[in-house]
Amino acid sequence: MRFPKALAVGGILAIAVTAASFAQEQATVQGSIPNLNLMPQAPELRAGQGRLAIDGSFRVALTGYQEPRLQHAAGRLVQRLRRQTGIPFDDRLETDASKATLVIACERAGEVVQSVKEDESYTLEVTPQQARLSSPTPVGALRGMETFLQLVDLDDKGFGVPGVTIHDRPRFPWRGLMLDVSRHFMPLPVVERTLDGMAAVKLNVFHWHLSDDQGWRVESKRFPKLQELGSDGKYYTQDQVKEVIDYARDRGIRVVPEFDMPGHTTALLAAYPQYASAPGPYSIERHWGIFNPCLDPANDAVYTFLDALIGEMAGLFPDDYFHIGGDEVNGRQWKNNPRIQEFMKAHDLKNTADLQTYFSEHVVPLVEKHGKKVIGWDEVLHPGLPKSAVVQSWRGQRSLAEAARQGYTGILSAGYYLDLMQPAAQHYQVDPLEGATANLTPEQKSHILGGEACMWVEFATPESVDTRIWPRMAAIAERLWSPEDVKDVDSMYRRLVVTSHWLDSVGLTHHTAHAYMLERLTNLRPTASLEMLDSVLEPVKGYAREGARDYTSFTPLNRLVDSTPPESTAARAFAKLVADPKANQDAIRKRLTAWRDNKAELVPLMQNSALLQEDVPLAEDVSALAATGLQALDYINSGKPAPDSWVTDQKEFIGRARKARAELLIMIAPSIQNLVDAAAKSGT
Amino acid sequence: MRFPKALAVGGILAIAVTAASFAQEQATVQGSIPNLNLMPQAPELRAGQGRLAIDGSFRVALTGYQEPRLQHAAGRLVQRLRRQTGIPFDDRLETDASKATLVIACERAGEVVQSVKEDESYTLEVTPQQARLSSPTPVGALRGMETFLQLVDLDDKGFGVPGVTIHDRPRFPWRGLMLDVSRHFMPLPVVERTLDGMAAVKLNVFHWHLSDDQGWRVESKRFPKLQELGSDGKYYTQDQVKEVIDYARDRGIRVVPEFDMPGHTTALLAAYPQYASAPGPYSIERHWGIFNPCLDPANDAVYTFLDALIGEMAGLFPDDYFHIGGDEVNGRQWKNNPRIQEFMKAHDLKNTADLQTYFSEHVVPLVEKHGKKVIGWDEVLHPGLPKSAVVQSWRGQRSLAEAARQGYTGILSAGYYLDLMQPAAQHYQVDPLEGATANLTPEQKSHILGGEACMWVEFATPESVDTRIWPRMAAIAERLWSPEDVKDVDSMYRRLVVTSHWLDSVGLTHHTAHAYMLERLTNLRPTASLEMLDSVLEPVKGYAREGARDYTSFTPLNRLVDSTPPESTAARAFAKLVADPKANQDAIRKRLTAWRDNKAELVPLMQNSALLQEDVPLAEDVSALAATGLQALDYINSGKPAPDSWVTDQKEFIGRARKARAELLIMIAPSIQNLVDAAAKSGT
Repeated sequence: MRFPKALAVGGILAIAVTAASFAQEQATVQGSIPNLNLMPQAPELRAGQGRLAIDGSFRVALTGYQEPRLQHAAGRLVQRLRRQTGIPFDDRLETDASKATLVIACERAGEVVQSVKEDESYTLEVTPQQARLSSPTPVGALRGMETFLQLVDLDDKGFGVPGVTIHDRPRFPWRGLMLDVSRHFMPLPVVERTLDGMAAVKLNVFHWHLSDDQGWRVESKRFPKLQELGSDGKYYTQDQVKEVIDYARDRGIRVVPEFDMPGHTTALLAAYPQYASAPGPYSIERHWGIFNPCLDPANDAVYTFLDALIGEMAGLFPDDYFHIGGDEVNGRQWKNNPRIQEFMKAHDLKNTADLQTYFSEHVVPLVEKHGKKVIGWDEVLHPGLPKSAVVQSWRGQRSLAEAARQGYTGILSAGYYLDLMQPAAQHYQVDPLEGATANLTPEQKSHILGGEACMWVEFATPESVDTRIWPRMAAIAERLWSPEDVKDVDSMYRRLVVTSHWLDSVGLTHHTAHAYMLERLTNLRPTASLEMLDSVLEPVKGYAREGARDYTSFTPLNRLVDSTPPESTAARAFAKLVADPKANQDAIRKRLTAWRDNKAELVPLMQNSALLQEDVPLAEDVSALAATGLQALDYINSGKPAPDSWVTDQKEFIGRARKARAELLIMIAPSIQNLVDAAAKSGT
Repeated sequence: MRFPKALAVGGILAIAVTAASFAQEQATVQGSIPNLNLMPQAPELRAGQGRLAIDGSFRVALTGYQEPRLQHAAGRLVQRLRRQTGIPFDDRLETDASKATLVIACERAGEVVQSVKEDESYTLEVTPQQARLSSPTPVGALRGMETFLQLVDLDDKGFGVPGVTIHDRPRFPWRGLMLDVSRHFMPLPVVERTLDGMAAVKLNVFHWHLSDDQGWRVESKRFPKLQELGSDGKYYTQDQVKEVIDYARDRGIRVVPEFDMPGHTTALLAAYPQYASAPGPYSIERHWGIFNPCLDPANDAVYTFLDALIGEMAGLFPDDYFHIGGDEVNGRQWKNNPRIQEFMKAHDLKNTADLQTYFSEHVVPLVEKHGKKVIGWDEVLHPGLPKSAVVQSWRGQRSLAEAARQGYTGILSAGYYLDLMQPAAQHYQVDPLEGATANLTPEQKSHILGGEACMWVEFATPESVDTRIWPRMAAIAERLWSPEDVKDVDSMYRRLVVTSHWLDSVGLTHHTAHAYMLERLTNLRPTASLEMLDSVLEPVKGYAREGARDYTSFTPLNRLVDSTPPESTAARAFAKLVADPKANQDAIRKRLTAWRDNKAELVPLMQNSALLQEDVPLAEDVSALAATGLQALDYINSGKPAPDSWVTDQKEFIGRARKARAELLIMIAPSIQNLVDAAAKSGT
């Protein structure tokens, strides 16, 4: 499916024009409305006069087009606002719009099945008398309601929304989150609160990674062995799937299911080993990585099976798109099977990549036969792929550009992998239309539909997954919604910190789960000293954890590394201070002293906890780093350079302290090195 | 209903014998198992050898008598243990008991409808090889499972349970919590997590205060106007009531419904004004206090109505007991109604108390007719009350003793009002068999069935109610379960602090709601400085809040006083330190310095928040009190007495600082006065 050219190109141009003055305008707005905390930013936002008070008289009216989705959303808005403010509002909708605090005026019904063509635009005007939200469609109204809720704040007069006029619409029509539910099953409440969080930051595609080597997660009535033998009893019933789809639709979110094939199919093959490329039996995979089991492209029965399975699943999921995976086929079973080798020769398939293309060429028509368009990972891109297909790039903008040049649509996921524990700024700086895609023609660019963050859950559980997705997801959501030139990292972080707490009112658990996991680590004893250590740590990056231990599905993820947030706010703030050590000396010294002295209380606590013992060296090193920092400050104050030998010793020590221990990194180490460098140059 | 003499007296004697050596034994146990955290304490507990490890191999087996309630409980135990440890256990029950980590052996079915006669005893033996829980009944097994979960801790080797043998049984057969759901409606999830918390501390009666002036909270099919006109749409359907009853039964908890009459009936009279003692119309009361509207005892139609209503509700609630309230009738409508005055004369009723007795004498037979025994507040005690009735004393042990002497059974609630914001120690020291009841004969004492904590919710919402009930409820639960001589306040607090965090794993929200409410107050900004202030404050005590403002059902309960926990752990710890200022000087100085300096960050934050502005004087005074404390320390160190003028000034200042502001009290003020007193006497 190609994104309609008129809408895409027109939309992008309109945004470009508007966005030209965005930076200045935004500066003005931020100046006059200091607490304004919109994330993602809107392309057009003008500060108005005064402030709309939110008090016990708050009421919502729906005018214009009405449907249950809007009524549900208005009801949720009142509940959310009650949670934000603690004010017991009247639940009932106001019928007289002139008396309402917030009037929602929707023009018409949206699409029966939401697609990439859905109009998500809205206008929100807030005056001291009333807020008015107008939109062509219910989905636009949903987006505007989230904006309204985000703008509610508390100042010295009370709760309210600053006077403002916002014209808002997304830059990209496909803004998603992929959630893996195979490596660790994610029960329904996790899925539902994830959808709530997605809606809060205006995402519109929930990509549900439902099958992989470690589990088949959806009930099949046609092939019940899939869940019976492939899920450990941990799967969604078809009724639950429908519940999720309804829940998502109520929030303006499409649900795109993924059934990964021909690789990543061990769980499927545990149920139906006859479709493998090597003799079974198979059992559910318990380790992480890339595995050999693979469907057999040379077996006609495989396509018969897939036809029936895809048919059943295509009936269950109403979205236009059906994701067939296609990633990471290592081809080992194909190379080792003489029958398959013979088949390849007979069909003039030179290598396993060709064989995968053969497989795709036979599966894609099955998907289309059942009324769906195909989406797949980079690997599915091959000459015979129908132009309606979407290529999801986990490899980078290059393959996206290549797909676009060939006339395919695509979305970017490379750079948006939340499980790799990268800072929000790093994701924020990845743009679907930069790098290799920057040189595409405008027509080709219109084929880039957007992007999807990915949350693979080898190292996340239902308990911890929110701490891995949030708040960084909000930064990616802004990248995909807001104009291209909204990229001020400081502004992003300033708003992200507030948004992170606002997301508590949405029902996400990234803060509460983190606090709970620390309590567990200390055996229910006071956690303040552990919090202080934890606040300057981050988990190791990329795939470093996979090599660190022999992890399996049964490994408890209850260690400090499993609770530590992906990004240290304290270390980032400290780095800012250290940029000017003289000006910020008091603040730096206060922090360093606290970090240096923390180990006295912390280390005995850690020694009593089997789970924290591995982290004692980190506690010791944070303390020693802080002591080094304090010495460096003394040298800086002295106006004379620190002795070379001291500088050398510290550098060596800091080098050691920067190394991962217990799969954790000390994030203040680089700033301490900067202080040492400043001390070395002191007075010069 | 009288508590069977043999069981009660026998039980109490047996406990007395056992409990004699309890204090020493417990000391030994606590010495050898330092992390042991059982609350309520068991009458017989002996430390064993070694430790049972809890790891991924943990499995539960059920042997002996089986029923769904036990299977559900075993399933919940595994889930709870997973949450406590973060270890992904196998969900399935082990069929081979020899391979199980925990074997639960139940002898026989319990009562079909749980009553005060239910056997709740159990034995838990833990060795390094296995834990064995045996009990006569499923309810005993439920109690033992909570003990097992409480004993799980984390030491330097890992998760485990210390070797121990426990023979446990309750001192009193009626251990309850009354929850008011009328003043602020409490939705189903609040009720259910309250039941989870109750089960965790071995309570067995949920007293559901379902009607009052401010709301009728249960669906009547017979009289639907009750919910239509008396509830603002906030009521439990009969299906929901059944769900709660099942949920409670699954946890070994009885559900006793209360329909308060003849007073506290404004909401009922909003629906059926014809049964009032003065002409209507009536509308749901929005204020707090004692109000005039009252059923008309002189109107026969009232009894016809109550017969049908009680009949319907008696059919809905399976418990033996039916609570008819009876409290706080001010008699004003009766005095002002000439017809009623005439009726009183005709029936030789001298005063309104006599008229209430007349009412009771006519309502009690209706309750009995529908197969229930009556429970009511003190006021229902009158000569004609059947001996099967239970008197719930909100006035004190005196009326309980009087009831017992007359042959009634009774439970104590005076001293257990959680909404009065008293410290846990104060509730802990109230014993149903002390004071006026201490002189009863053993036979009379056996009529005292136990007690109930009461949570009236004028000043609590679904959001905050957990912070009002927990953890103090656990201290009262111990009073009602554990032997009379388990009353060491220091031991109670040591265990209460840990239990409070353990209750997080049960699903209670007292910590998360508190943290969330502080975030709201700071407009989602960092809360550390507010937490520090909050940690030394407590809400005003008793009924002081009612007079402080014109509160109604519509008043937002979103201020600092609404989130501050009822009891300041920090102030209690500080008072301990101040008891020996010389020995603890460093620790005292560290805290005082932090408190003194906190206002620099805090006060600007507060000034920007309309909700926190009223608390600025508290922040200023905590800082000034801390400064006084530091000066006092300096005088103490000097070895010379502080000057009289300084002592006088400080005393005057502290006197002012002890006064409530914004309905909050500074709890370190008395300790600062102690430091000033010590400074005044320094060197002498």
